[in-house]
Amino acid sequence: MTVETISLNRSHGGTQGVYKHASHQTRTSMTFSVYVPPRQDGVKLPVVWYLSGLTCTHANVTEKGEFRKACAELGLIFVAADTSPRGEGVPGDPAGSYDFGLGAGFYVDATEAPYSTHYRMWSYLTQELPEVISAHFPVDPSRQSILGHSMGGHGALTMALRLPTRYRSASAFSPIVAPSQVPWGIKALGGYLGSAREAWRKHDAVALIEDGARFSGFLVDYGDADQFLTEQLRPELLARECANAAIPLELRRQSGYDHSYYFISTFMDDHLRWHAARLKS
Amino acid sequence: MTVETISLNRSHGGTQGVYKHASHQTRTSMTFSVYVPPRQDGVKLPVVWYLSGLTCTHANVTEKGEFRKACAELGLIFVAADTSPRGEGVPGDPAGSYDFGLGAGFYVDATEAPYSTHYRMWSYLTQELPEVISAHFPVDPSRQSILGHSMGGHGALTMALRLPTRYRSASAFSPIVAPSQVPWGIKALGGYLGSAREAWRKHDAVALIEDGARFSGFLVDYGDADQFLTEQLRPELLARECANAAIPLELRRQSGYDHSYYFISTFMDDHLRWHAARLKS
Repeated sequence: MTVETISLNRSHGGTQGVYKHASHQTRTSMTFSVYVPPRQDGVKLPVVWYLSGLTCTHANVTEKGEFRKACAELGLIFVAADTSPRGEGVPGDPAGSYDFGLGAGFYVDATEAPYSTHYRMWSYLTQELPEVISAHFPVDPSRQSILGHSMGGHGALTMALRLPTRYRSASAFSPIVAPSQVPWGIKALGGYLGSAREAWRKHDAVALIEDGARFSGFLVDYGDADQFLTEQLRPELLARECANAAIPLELRRQSGYDHSYYFISTFMDDHLRWHAARLKS
Repeated sequence: MTVETISLNRSHGGTQGVYKHASHQTRTSMTFSVYVPPRQDGVKLPVVWYLSGLTCTHANVTEKGEFRKACAELGLIFVAADTSPRGEGVPGDPAGSYDFGLGAGFYVDATEAPYSTHYRMWSYLTQELPEVISAHFPVDPSRQSILGHSMGGHGALTMALRLPTRYRSASAFSPIVAPSQVPWGIKALGGYLGSAREAWRKHDAVALIEDGARFSGFLVDYGDADQFLTEQLRPELLARECANAAIPLELRRQSGYDHSYYFISTFMDDHLRWHAARLKS
């Protein structure tokens, strides 16, 4: 479980690092970033997991997310991962699209060839990377939260619903809430998991809730100028399902905001404070 | 004086825009970014100019600078420009180095061929772009401040010293304070202005102060882990000259910080509050 340090930069009183390691799940080298806020020696801190959207790597939120000031103040470790395996031998979308394959792992363990060999982002993010983080960083595994953007919002919601005792809280920016019902999700889940839709349900937040999964509550922000809102995101489906299941949902429509990191960075502070309140209780 | 909008994104309650226009100074298309914070209709706001370092465009600080939250709170317009002309017919460094030519205009009007045709960043930033900004954005020209990083810190210090009634305040992150005495500056000023060193003095903050230029005071941060500190930046030369000239200098050595935007973004908030105090008095 060797971790190689790619870069380390002092920032907001703590340390922003970028690392890589050989993943046995994806059978590739995987890159991730970790921000460790200022802390006293020996103290273990709560950890916030961030899952990125289509086309992203760890770098997008690391550079543009504006999370470090709040993490430094609140004492949160912030981990950002890649969105798919990459490298020689990793198959992408045959058509070269942005919404499948490289940069678009959709946080599932693929069962379809040729993707099943490397596309194991579910197990990578719920099993392997947590072990790496616990072994190498001063995290308190009893205090974990998760958030994500777009495809990563989908990942955060589904991980919270399937691992409700692991995460104290879960939030999302512009999440894909019902991938089985929207073009991005139908393409990805069909491609990675095959055409039998029953297998998709455990990777669909709305279907998981329909099937009985529960969580302590979600904070979700979306922008009303988001170009993907009505076709791909459909937050109203999550609102209806959470209401049916009595899952507390704080769903905020942000006027004039789009799908970009200009939106995410605006509300990152809110999300981190919301998580911190739940991580410290 | 047509300005074309490349992108507009709502952020932190205001609007982050990226624009381009045909510059008569550089004889090229020039790109810049402007953040306009939330404001009441008809109100004109103070403006902060940001000058970037070697290799940068407007995009580096726009994406990584973490300035919007403070600008929104303080009511500051934030303008970021490119660091050189670019495009067809613009000569770069014959050797292809990062520290001369494209991305390295050094905020001078070149007098040497072949650079003198396009490399007019001094006049672009002190004359042309201010006119464009005043014509298209709700700025109050009586309230302007300037800051910059590295080569852009050099630009900010020299502009403040030569236009002391225009800028209410000036600050810098890791500035080149005495380009005539360091390798980056000797290469750039020699290449753009020729070998007669007398012509360099008006583009050297330390030399300008020696020659009698004065300013109301500077805030300067640098990191003690900055790889360029002792060879290229040499803040002690500015400290000595400011002391000789009784120019107030708040020079802060930040422990563990390097030359990157992880450093800049950490102290951006401090700088903007320092400028705002002077812009509002």
